Amino acid sequence: MDAAVPIARTETVGLIDADGRVAAADVIAAVDVPPFDRAAMDGYAVIADDTAGATRQSPASLSFAGRLYTGEVASRPIGRGECLEIATGAPMPDGANAVVMVEETTRDGDVVRIREAVRPGQNVGRRAADIAAGAIVSRAGHVLTPSRIGALAAAGVAGVEVFARPSVAILSTGDEIVEPGEPLGPGQIYDVNRYTIETVVRRHGGVAAARPISADSLDELIASLDEATAHDLVVVSGGSSVGDRDLIRDALAARGEIHFHGIAVKPGKPTALATVGGTPVFAMPGYPTSCLSNAYMLLVPFLRAVARLPPWQPRTVEAPLGRRINSAPGRLQFYTVRIVNGIAEPAFKASGDITSMADADGYIEIPAEADAVDAGTVVTVKLF
Amino acid sequence: MDAAVPIARTETVGLIDADGRVAAADVIAAVDVPPFDRAAMDGYAVIADDTAGATRQSPASLSFAGRLYTGEVASRPIGRGECLEIATGAPMPDGANAVVMVEETTRDGDVVRIREAVRPGQNVGRRAADIAAGAIVSRAGHVLTPSRIGALAAAGVAGVEVFARPSVAILSTGDEIVEPGEPLGPGQIYDVNRYTIETVVRRHGGVAAARPISADSLDELIASLDEATAHDLVVVSGGSSVGDRDLIRDALAARGEIHFHGIAVKPGKPTALATVGGTPVFAMPGYPTSCLSNAYMLLVPFLRAVARLPPWQPRTVEAPLGRRINSAPGRLQFYTVRIVNGIAEPAFKASGDITSMADADGYIEIPAEADAVDAGTVVTVKLF
Repeated sequence: MDAAVPIARTETVGLIDADGRVAAADVIAAVDVPPFDRAAMDGYAVIADDTAGATRQSPASLSFAGRLYTGEVASRPIGRGECLEIATGAPMPDGANAVVMVEETTRDGDVVRIREAVRPGQNVGRRAADIAAGAIVSRAGHVLTPSRIGALAAAGVAGVEVFARPSVAILSTGDEIVEPGEPLGPGQIYDVNRYTIETVVRRHGGVAAARPISADSLDELIASLDEATAHDLVVVSGGSSVGDRDLIRDALAARGEIHFHGIAVKPGKPTALATVGGTPVFAMPGYPTSCLSNAYMLLVPFLRAVARLPPWQPRTVEAPLGRRINSAPGRLQFYTVRIVNGIAEPAFKASGDITSMADADGYIEIPAEADAVDAGTVVTVKLF
Repeated sequence: MDAAVPIARTETVGLIDADGRVAAADVIAAVDVPPFDRAAMDGYAVIADDTAGATRQSPASLSFAGRLYTGEVASRPIGRGECLEIATGAPMPDGANAVVMVEETTRDGDVVRIREAVRPGQNVGRRAADIAAGAIVSRAGHVLTPSRIGALAAAGVAGVEVFARPSVAILSTGDEIVEPGEPLGPGQIYDVNRYTIETVVRRHGGVAAARPISADSLDELIASLDEATAHDLVVVSGGSSVGDRDLIRDALAARGEIHFHGIAVKPGKPTALATVGGTPVFAMPGYPTSCLSNAYMLLVPFLRAVARLPPWQPRTVEAPLGRRINSAPGRLQFYTVRIVNGIAEPAFKASGDITSMADADGYIEIPAEADAVDAGTVVTVKLF
């Protein structure tokens, strides 16, 4: 996590596109919200003193001074003994300081009978009661939500400065990798990791930039890596083990600093993190489930920190385990399960099988010190 | 909910854009995944019988027949007494039926010493073990996720048929309503509801289409409504109370059938649902917090049903209430709170104040039969 540098670039987006983005600066209200005292009820704007003692039995009589709709402004102040019919949200006329609900009134020509005394301010929404000019409407670092966007709109703000989404280069490697939709040649398989990583990146605040598939040659890998490090973060998949042609490690060592290579996690042990030209580079295993499970466990927290988003809190369910799972001692295990009739049924097949995850509802984490989890143990399932 | 008709339109999207979408048809795999038996480890492809009895003390000696990388195909079958060096993921050569891990071998020129017996199939990923041709990769009605998209990619599928996102027309009404960014005239306020509703619609599977603000005239409202009902769903805000110029009810009655007008909810009592020309129309109060809280309580479940998404399950926290809240008996109350040091502090100001929600972390629901919730009561806060 020390290598995760929170992004500094900012951009201005329209309000509609600001949902889920991280505000980069405090926004100060330039206007009061509401911008005027307004009627909080349909009724009559009055001078409160004119209603003193009014009751159902002994109503006050006031003189009808006209009608005011929302969007209109009274042409003259209200004087003693007068009242103005007013709609909810319309600006209070000068002179008036309270509203009598329409239900407590009757009108007969130019005479309005008021059956209830009101106190000053009653049924009036005060100018600036929601947001005062000069107040902070939206704070730097907060994630924008529908209601926070609503507050910005209320203050008349049309655009907001937010942190840029980290740009994440996604680089699949391997001579055998082909794009879905293309015909498969002998010995070839389809690229899976580009698609799983790209969708995870988009879900967690990043902009994904898929790079062309790189062949297994050191020169080509280094060239691909150099181009990819123009982005804020790089995720390479494939070629991260220690086979004869697993060249990613060599490319990373040639161009930057490797922080770790090999982690006590199952699946996904041959995962590396490096920094190349100041850019963090995750090297993920090529096996789809290893790659995607490490994306959930390592990339998501890292990317969210770079994007300045709060840690991910997946929905979880507690469920008893359907059958015993053996676990590799000394390695944290990411184990997928399906929830069937309230039971967490093991769904893991093999780390090369994407259906280990596609047919699962979520996963449990088995600590490194455990060598098994017994059937019936209540486990916490993190839902996908 | 009876008026929520699940959408029938479908469209085909690229895999990358399919995350979160609802699959409209089963997808059948046209190929096996993997498409061939492959090495599951770096090592030597062998005929298992040739390793019978091999141990560290008494290794078997096999003849080195070359090297096979991923993306390559062996040029000839393996014969008895031979072995082929093979990389993880490379297709098994004909004749071979197991892989010995490289760690259990040593090579000396053309002789490879095998220190471990393997059984047929050991360290081999079988063709079709992940997905068999003819199997269902993705089921109609399922929401697509990164791993399900990965399974489609693995099967070579480049595009997927999904249900269209419901198109939701958003219509703000009121002579006093001005777009943020424009100057405010006397008696005018900024449009908030368009922005809060549009972001909620986007979050819950809809495509928002903001319509021009409609003035408070029955003719104009009816014309705006008629245009808006070309969409799958309409959300009108403002003008849904019973004031002299609250014309939405009249417009809805003139053009369609009103299912309800006025609900036992606080805030947001003057909310209506109608069907106009077969299109459901929500008429929300103009007050921003009333409008948005009813969007959470009514529009979200409705929209998700139309979009064929599962019910929303917001994250929740349990926390003791910081101080007593009085509630309107007979009305379900939506009450916003802020979580401060583990305490749910009331955050509600007034239903006209968007900061009632913007400064809150979530809300509690107080049942209609309760007239108060005491300080210290543990409440379930639904987080925004």
